[in-house]
Amino acid sequence: MLEADLLIITGGLGPTADDLTRQAAAEALGQPLVEDAGALRQIEQSFASRTRRMPAINRVQALRPQGAVILPNPHGTAPGLYVPPGAHACDIVCLPGPPREMQPMFEAEVVPRLRCPLDHIVRTRLIHTHGLGESAVASRLNELMERSRTPLVGTTASRTVVTCRIRYEGPASGLHGSTPDELVAATEGEVRQRLEPYIFGTGQCTLASAVLELLRAQQRTLAVVESCTGGLLGAMITEIPRASDVFSGGWITYSNEAKRGHIGVPAELFSTGGPGAVSEECAVAMARGGLDRAGTTDCLSITGIAGPGGGASSKPVGTVWIAHASRNGETVASGVRRLQFPGDRTSIREWSALTALGMLRLSLIGRDDLPLLGEVR
Amino acid sequence: MLEADLLIITGGLGPTADDLTRQAAAEALGQPLVEDAGALRQIEQSFASRTRRMPAINRVQALRPQGAVILPNPHGTAPGLYVPPGAHACDIVCLPGPPREMQPMFEAEVVPRLRCPLDHIVRTRLIHTHGLGESAVASRLNELMERSRTPLVGTTASRTVVTCRIRYEGPASGLHGSTPDELVAATEGEVRQRLEPYIFGTGQCTLASAVLELLRAQQRTLAVVESCTGGLLGAMITEIPRASDVFSGGWITYSNEAKRGHIGVPAELFSTGGPGAVSEECAVAMARGGLDRAGTTDCLSITGIAGPGGGASSKPVGTVWIAHASRNGETVASGVRRLQFPGDRTSIREWSALTALGMLRLSLIGRDDLPLLGEVR
Repeated sequence: MLEADLLIITGGLGPTADDLTRQAAAEALGQPLVEDAGALRQIEQSFASRTRRMPAINRVQALRPQGAVILPNPHGTAPGLYVPPGAHACDIVCLPGPPREMQPMFEAEVVPRLRCPLDHIVRTRLIHTHGLGESAVASRLNELMERSRTPLVGTTASRTVVTCRIRYEGPASGLHGSTPDELVAATEGEVRQRLEPYIFGTGQCTLASAVLELLRAQQRTLAVVESCTGGLLGAMITEIPRASDVFSGGWITYSNEAKRGHIGVPAELFSTGGPGAVSEECAVAMARGGLDRAGTTDCLSITGIAGPGGGASSKPVGTVWIAHASRNGETVASGVRRLQFPGDRTSIREWSALTALGMLRLSLIGRDDLPLLGEVR
Repeated sequence: MLEADLLIITGGLGPTADDLTRQAAAEALGQPLVEDAGALRQIEQSFASRTRRMPAINRVQALRPQGAVILPNPHGTAPGLYVPPGAHACDIVCLPGPPREMQPMFEAEVVPRLRCPLDHIVRTRLIHTHGLGESAVASRLNELMERSRTPLVGTTASRTVVTCRIRYEGPASGLHGSTPDELVAATEGEVRQRLEPYIFGTGQCTLASAVLELLRAQQRTLAVVESCTGGLLGAMITEIPRASDVFSGGWITYSNEAKRGHIGVPAELFSTGGPGAVSEECAVAMARGGLDRAGTTDCLSITGIAGPGGGASSKPVGTVWIAHASRNGETVASGVRRLQFPGDRTSIREWSALTALGMLRLSLIGRDDLPLLGEVR
């Protein structure tokens, strides 16, 4: 009846009465549920590591259809299930729903079990850019994106990052005398020629991890002063392990009083007729004030209007100023950009934090001259 | 051939050569692609609002299969498509892939077009809790979760928040003399009895928005001092519109030097033999130092080991101290909790920020006595 080679089910492996994947799988397979001693031990240990006793209700998570194999879950209590093909034609895999549990289990337990035709392989390579819009990236890639090409070249846009995906699918021996890896590398070379200097990394690299690497390599240190992003830039930076090597911390100066009191933005900027909190002057004062107090070599500041309220005709929602102050020996310099971002509060805040990282990156590679997506010049 | 009443396709509506949903839909429908003048105008305006000119490549986004209706996209350039049932039996909807564009379009354009049997309706109600694990919530709900019950009661866990979902599916006239709304309300009453005081809100409410509401109602103000979360708590708070009413800002004290310099944590805490940065003493000094400098009524601090490095046998990865300092008139008080969180760096940071909000919430409702999920007592 089933025509698929592989059936993946996610979710429904929790301990509560509405978690029915185990029961449904057993029923569909015509097998009884049996308790797996190893799985039970693992679940008990998972609670013990958090100094808790396993509630009785979680015992159900150690059940598996007879003939199924338990897939260990190092990130939660719900083990996965693998049912090798039997009377049914296909592999069946049941994975927990939460992404942070599901993804590692997929990598560790499912990928090695995939039965691919040995002669047909897929190779992908992700090349991440920041600063250009998706249309601009596509214009530069031009004929590389033709659908008849091998390897295929595609683009995806997520927030301000445009990723170029190179994908080879074909014989394991390659084509035209080149191996798959050689074909992908040759295409990557062409992509790089067209998109440098906007490329910040490949694969798992994020804009934050790329910037931290540059700072580390140049023995520089960073602080942040955030208004409309309210900590989001700091959160993106500290999401990366070992951020503490180069990141000292910063200030969330959400109110004008905090801008004045914590980092010394002059009070007259906020008085009637002054430029206000969302201005070039305020952004620069925030970055310089932060640099001064943190004692780092670099400081980024962000001030803007994330909405939905607070916009005006001269400063509509999405208006953001980002400044970068840097110290080289005795000299302190600063750069500042005005940006106009689309979308809702969440988007404007994410674009702001990512664009601050992109601005710092351009400075660290000596390309302060390049405009950034969303910039108003 | 198709047995579905509705086909929803997401993604592939971008401007580049690998965005093929429009072409594929036209081909499947046997219709030519035509340019929609209204859609073209909207796309041009979307760029104009960001002070950019529409790149030529984006013109393709104004194409639609003949007979299809354009669905406007207020959050991006890609309009959606709606194809009413014709020779094919089902409604076809094409939506853009990015969630922030897709979700509002689904709400505004797809939901009103759903053709449901008039006599069969679904009513759902989400009730969010913080502080209990999913197993503990399920134990309290007990027989309410039986699968034969109407309305159904289920639970989902996302990070530290456990949501109880009440779902009525049945005749629009209700059952046993009660309307669907009455049945849902009666079940909600039972759920509330069993889960109060852990319930912080319903529907779209988040832990951050609930805490901001409590602060606003009690005319209190908040500052934060973050170490291992690096700004994530501030980011969660400022994600909520009008956070500025009650949130003044704070400090990202990632390095020990920042803890000492910016908010006056005593240097001796960090010296050899001292309790160190991840300790009750440091968490309390951070919260009190922040309260003092911010001049707010409340201050939350977080210090912990998010990993993957930095753990020790006495302070394993996942060890987090959270403190809350509060001012009532002349009196300053502080509470502090030790937590042990599971999972990777991302999880530990998210759990930490959410648990800080949950701790503040318990204090604001006068239930400081209740333990929190992950707490070590």
